[in-house]
Amino acid sequence: MTFQTPIRDMRFLLDHAAGFGVLEKTGAYPELSEDLVAAILEEMGKFCDQVIAPLNEVSDREGAVLENGVVRTSPGYKEAYQQYVEGGWSSLAFPEEFGGQGLPSTLAVALVDALNAACMSFAIGTTLTTGAVKAILHAATDEQKKLYLEKMVTGEWTGTMNLTEPSAGSDLSAVRAKAEPVGDGTYKISGQKIFITYGDHDMTDNVIHLVLARLPDAPEGTAGISMFLVPKFHVNEDGSLGARNDAHCIKLEEKMGLHGSPTCVMAFGDNGDCIGTLLGEENKGLRNMFVMMNSARLDVGMQGVGIAERGYQRALAYAQDRKQGRAPGVKSGEMIAIYEHPDVQRMVYSMKALTDASRAICYANAVAYDLAHSSPDEETRQKAKALEGLLTPISKAWSTDRANEVTSIGVQVHGGMGYIEETGAAQHMRDARIAAIYEGTNGIQAIDLVGRKLQGDGGAAVKDFIAEVRSEAKLLEAANRDDLTHIGARLLAAADALTASTEWLLDAAGKDQAAVLAGATPYLKQFGNVAGGYYLARGAKAAALYINEGEDRDYYEAKIAIAHFYADNYLTEAVSVTDSVTAGVLPRLDPEKLSA
Amino acid sequence: MTFQTPIRDMRFLLDHAAGFGVLEKTGAYPELSEDLVAAILEEMGKFCDQVIAPLNEVSDREGAVLENGVVRTSPGYKEAYQQYVEGGWSSLAFPEEFGGQGLPSTLAVALVDALNAACMSFAIGTTLTTGAVKAILHAATDEQKKLYLEKMVTGEWTGTMNLTEPSAGSDLSAVRAKAEPVGDGTYKISGQKIFITYGDHDMTDNVIHLVLARLPDAPEGTAGISMFLVPKFHVNEDGSLGARNDAHCIKLEEKMGLHGSPTCVMAFGDNGDCIGTLLGEENKGLRNMFVMMNSARLDVGMQGVGIAERGYQRALAYAQDRKQGRAPGVKSGEMIAIYEHPDVQRMVYSMKALTDASRAICYANAVAYDLAHSSPDEETRQKAKALEGLLTPISKAWSTDRANEVTSIGVQVHGGMGYIEETGAAQHMRDARIAAIYEGTNGIQAIDLVGRKLQGDGGAAVKDFIAEVRSEAKLLEAANRDDLTHIGARLLAAADALTASTEWLLDAAGKDQAAVLAGATPYLKQFGNVAGGYYLARGAKAAALYINEGEDRDYYEAKIAIAHFYADNYLTEAVSVTDSVTAGVLPRLDPEKLSA
Repeated sequence: MTFQTPIRDMRFLLDHAAGFGVLEKTGAYPELSEDLVAAILEEMGKFCDQVIAPLNEVSDREGAVLENGVVRTSPGYKEAYQQYVEGGWSSLAFPEEFGGQGLPSTLAVALVDALNAACMSFAIGTTLTTGAVKAILHAATDEQKKLYLEKMVTGEWTGTMNLTEPSAGSDLSAVRAKAEPVGDGTYKISGQKIFITYGDHDMTDNVIHLVLARLPDAPEGTAGISMFLVPKFHVNEDGSLGARNDAHCIKLEEKMGLHGSPTCVMAFGDNGDCIGTLLGEENKGLRNMFVMMNSARLDVGMQGVGIAERGYQRALAYAQDRKQGRAPGVKSGEMIAIYEHPDVQRMVYSMKALTDASRAICYANAVAYDLAHSSPDEETRQKAKALEGLLTPISKAWSTDRANEVTSIGVQVHGGMGYIEETGAAQHMRDARIAAIYEGTNGIQAIDLVGRKLQGDGGAAVKDFIAEVRSEAKLLEAANRDDLTHIGARLLAAADALTASTEWLLDAAGKDQAAVLAGATPYLKQFGNVAGGYYLARGAKAAALYINEGEDRDYYEAKIAIAHFYADNYLTEAVSVTDSVTAGVLPRLDPEKLSA
Repeated sequence: MTFQTPIRDMRFLLDHAAGFGVLEKTGAYPELSEDLVAAILEEMGKFCDQVIAPLNEVSDREGAVLENGVVRTSPGYKEAYQQYVEGGWSSLAFPEEFGGQGLPSTLAVALVDALNAACMSFAIGTTLTTGAVKAILHAATDEQKKLYLEKMVTGEWTGTMNLTEPSAGSDLSAVRAKAEPVGDGTYKISGQKIFITYGDHDMTDNVIHLVLARLPDAPEGTAGISMFLVPKFHVNEDGSLGARNDAHCIKLEEKMGLHGSPTCVMAFGDNGDCIGTLLGEENKGLRNMFVMMNSARLDVGMQGVGIAERGYQRALAYAQDRKQGRAPGVKSGEMIAIYEHPDVQRMVYSMKALTDASRAICYANAVAYDLAHSSPDEETRQKAKALEGLLTPISKAWSTDRANEVTSIGVQVHGGMGYIEETGAAQHMRDARIAAIYEGTNGIQAIDLVGRKLQGDGGAAVKDFIAEVRSEAKLLEAANRDDLTHIGARLLAAADALTASTEWLLDAAGKDQAAVLAGATPYLKQFGNVAGGYYLARGAKAAALYINEGEDRDYYEAKIAIAHFYADNYLTEAVSVTDSVTAGVLPRLDPEKLSA
């Protein structure tokens, strides 16, 4: 199957769903222009289609391996990564003073989309570096920046995120890794970390680990966690590489998918000689972690979008190719492509609608991030910051839940062939499955949404968002096309349902957090359904304008039709979810009585 | 993880959801008694827990292999299969005149549940034989029965179902395998079949293939398909084995899961010497196939239930074992089991509710099958037959869709560990994935539901079913417990929504089948949600009676609580689905414009 980066769809959703154009008006990106964006997307597509996509299938069969203490990546990864660095793809959205190109993060996020669609297990190696760079920009000393930053910005070195330990998964208060001051400003690090993505590999000369650990006198809990910068190879003042640090990959996990991505058990200081430097303030490691984590969460949402896109393209191609059965009422003659069957169209349209909706949410999230950082107007920045905070758990969780669904539908479209590994559809489903788990499980995202994001400002950001959705819905309801009117009405009903859930949760918040927490996951689902419908509705409205201008009608009609399909299936679904959100505290059932 | 067949839950749902007791009253099963059922379930549990369950993990790593033209099954399979035969498990529900035990099929279906929970890839090898025996009972000559039936009833020989060819998957009209009369009453078979489950293996001395093929003068399409009985080894008149037949496994598929089940490409007559006999009438092969297929469809639904049960048990055990975080509002101290977190309870309860609901639907389907065959009353038989027809596509499709969901939630409960193969949760998800595909994809089931089952009798069977649901709902609404009243109200609202969908579909049926077909999949989902809620409601009502009698309160309270949870999450979900069912014809979108 030939993969093609969906440049046109990406551009359409950037412009008409996510409002990317607003960034140009901030003046913060002097180079930014429509032509530049077009050129970047074009080159991005070529690179992903020609260099990255061919890595995907072989890396599933020949995954990363640990040999004699060294991780060897899948065939072609090292060479492709070189091209990634040489093409300047790593540095798109980093500051020019550290070798970056100073473009909006949104473009880097679009790159994450394309890279993940091309090859998810390759792509994840690049996004961890992005998070590490952001944490270093946020917290590092000038000396640390001088030593590490430029080579990480260019991608010559990669970064990792070392949080999880066997007993410290979602609950970082249980982190036990240690850091003891040596006396010269450095620290001796010791401990084991698990699930470290690209913790070691052979694509670059150095790997920069950001490691959560405790100082000797640190308080218990998350208030006693610091972050340390631990290079694989020490770096001399002139930038040359020094001695090998005592930070080693001691095991690779055997995973359900994503075989091309080395998931390492990392041992720090097993030989008593792991040296790192403090990143940021003592005991304030979680602050940096959240900088890194928020970036990573949006990128994981984007992974969901990318892998859904890949699964979708494969299913669409198969549905056109595979012939079975005849049209309703036709008894004999040639078999038709299964794409012509209504039930298969339903599957394909579901895949497309969910992929586009999650893409639009993630892009809008990225634009909000950029606006929060670059708008000259304080109020705009504040509003954008609030929207970014709100959309981050939704980008992460909703997109990845839907990616599981989309890639599974992709298997279904293939019938029996979907279950055969050779076909490739099953790989996308297996690869996708991790995204709902890492960087904070989707349950944790839902708790973030109903907790910090909803209750943190007494519901202000949520209410602002719903108000925007309602006003968009009313615009569509008043349109002079029946399909837009229909979408508008569906969106309004879904927004009403979301409002009801929101009010119930805000009310419950003052009384019983257990009731709020019990409703968290359905609330996130409902929110995502509404947000996806909102952004697709914006796209549909824009598409209607292009149709009136007479341009490429079929493309724009399809955009409206997919938004319509989404409205009839996912905005309607959102309406009933209020009953699940507001069902209240779950009784604690004795587990012994639950399995008998 | 220790697996335990959920005997008590099975018995509870048999008796109180599916109405198993009615079978004793038919008088058709003189041996049947409460004590016998209890004894059988007890022994079944021991056998599955001790003999079958230990096969599961090793068979995923060391799957079936093809070596020198012979299929070797996973370690322990052959020995376990011997015990299966010796224990008489194969013959439970077959007629006594052919060596069976003459018990209701429902008990055999419960065995399928337990076997699949213990080890799905082992279990599937046994259920294909059941379907083949039913087809032979239905259509074979006395001589064929004499030669083959008894050894298949006891399980000494297994059966297969050879339908699919590379171009004939869902559309059997494209079957191209040939059968030429030899002149002595036998036929020379030639052709290739794919996806043949247990097409060859080393567990028994012989394998009996039922093969769809065309006679030389057969009409085109499905009206020209005949069924042939093709043994792996010919059978002499005295029952001893004769020459090897020219029917060989030439390849095993590499699948996403179910590695212990050999999925064969079968070559018939590659050496010009494959001999079979006609089973049933010329060109009427599809009739036998549907006998076999209906049995297989319920069994596949049961597979969904079984694998969901296994995933559920593993997740429940992990949730009690794994410690992370603290209760809402508690900031320090020992970490608690994740089972104590409301969001994890939601996941576990979802798994339990969906597993029990699909189990109840499948059991009710089995009881309807038995009643249709054994009731002394003609009207009862007719009604049961209609219900069986209605429930079969729902058992098959809804249970397996939900099994995908349940096993995926099971991975999620495990967090990062869920993605590591060693944990075992991922295997259940990979194993489950095929069940929504084979024996007619779930899309085909939905089309069967809105076509033959709904339109075949002008909606009579569906309306009868909904009337039953409504009357049950009203009983619950009038109960003197708030939880039952609540469940009743939810059930009534869902039944109303299903009625609206049904009426719309019946109306559309006269005008536009494309609109009906577009609504098929959401209709099946809605129907399954309502049916599951109905059977759980029956169970809840019975549980309330036991509570009043003061017995084992916690168990029965949990049964009511799970039905309540189901009502708040899946009966509510059913309400909104009407909007998807009734959305009408999908526009045909140009695929070129859908991926850009």
